[in-house]
Amino acid sequence: MSSDNIVRHESRVDRRQREAQNRHYGLTIWFTGLSGSGKSTLSVALEERLAAMGCRTYRLDGDNVRTGLCRDLEFSPEDRIENIRRIGEVAGLFRDAGIINLTAFISPYRQDRDMARALADEGDFVEVFVNAPLAVCEARDPKGLYAKARAGNIPNFTGISAPYEPPEYPEVVVNTDTSTIDECVDHVVEYLVTNGYIDADRQASA
Amino acid sequence: MSSDNIVRHESRVDRRQREAQNRHYGLTIWFTGLSGSGKSTLSVALEERLAAMGCRTYRLDGDNVRTGLCRDLEFSPEDRIENIRRIGEVAGLFRDAGIINLTAFISPYRQDRDMARALADEGDFVEVFVNAPLAVCEARDPKGLYAKARAGNIPNFTGISAPYEPPEYPEVVVNTDTSTIDECVDHVVEYLVTNGYIDADRQASA
Repeated sequence: MSSDNIVRHESRVDRRQREAQNRHYGLTIWFTGLSGSGKSTLSVALEERLAAMGCRTYRLDGDNVRTGLCRDLEFSPEDRIENIRRIGEVAGLFRDAGIINLTAFISPYRQDRDMARALADEGDFVEVFVNAPLAVCEARDPKGLYAKARAGNIPNFTGISAPYEPPEYPEVVVNTDTSTIDECVDHVVEYLVTNGYIDADRQASA
Repeated sequence: MSSDNIVRHESRVDRRQREAQNRHYGLTIWFTGLSGSGKSTLSVALEERLAAMGCRTYRLDGDNVRTGLCRDLEFSPEDRIENIRRIGEVAGLFRDAGIINLTAFISPYRQDRDMARALADEGDFVEVFVNAPLAVCEARDPKGLYAKARAGNIPNFTGISAPYEPPEYPEVVVNTDTSTIDECVDHVVEYLVTNGYIDADRQASA
């Protein structure tokens, strides 16, 4: 190994090469919405659809982030911001890896979501507002969290004792109280195809 | 969307499915060695070789980690540990995504590397000791860091004013002072093929 070679650090397998290998762009699909709005369900269903098209995907959610990378963080305002920052940074690494990554976090504050968006190149961040009325989410209450929050056992619970700031300009809005899961997935996929993220022929073959 | 569906959170696109799609396992190849030993050069060259075999790869190094996910960290002992912890966690996410991820950090302490290894399932963590005598690394000094450290301008510089703890049981050892880059890459690829991480037919086609 000559010393000339030692400084050759720049990776020659770069993002564009990985994207060519995968035949799709690296991309973040950022779901946001109230607890119980259907973010996780939708992100799982969308990932299944994309994988069936042969896309390379990865999903970041509370299960694999809060217990690992962010397990040192609590729920203070500072830690909440740091949590979203790290998720945004990791999403950036997955974009660089040519992967379509899906994130499913309430992410209630516009400023935090915009921070994650700001880490992405223009067009590489697709914000999906998973919209459902609070009453509908609370009636679903899949984890029993609204009941606990109403009983005063969860401080700063989004929608009850802390605000949810809906996106002003989300790339996609899905209404989970009036549409089926499949219809919502169709809607996101249509956005991705129409905007050139995914070839239409993939869609046909899925 | 029925409320029955809302709790269906478990991803049905799982690691095994992604590995089947990629036709190789998710895996971390963790390079460790002195500054100037050749970690970055080797990890770049290995990634090129693996990509040529059609493997899905991603490389984590100071360039994409220290300036992003870990940009809040300094070089105190606590921050050094947290830096390696986060890298280990992100490596775990990439393993879960079915990607062969390569990390190129000095990671001088056995305890820190073992922490990263402990996050991986048995066999999913391949430690590569990039071995070269300190005098050789210092003579190469590709970034001029040894000169600065000798001049007293970099405190706690590994090999000069802070220890480097060589791995006791690395999966692979490469000697960059007596082998070429290609020979070192061959050696790691041979380990991966011999141990069933990569099909031999991929190697033949590369």
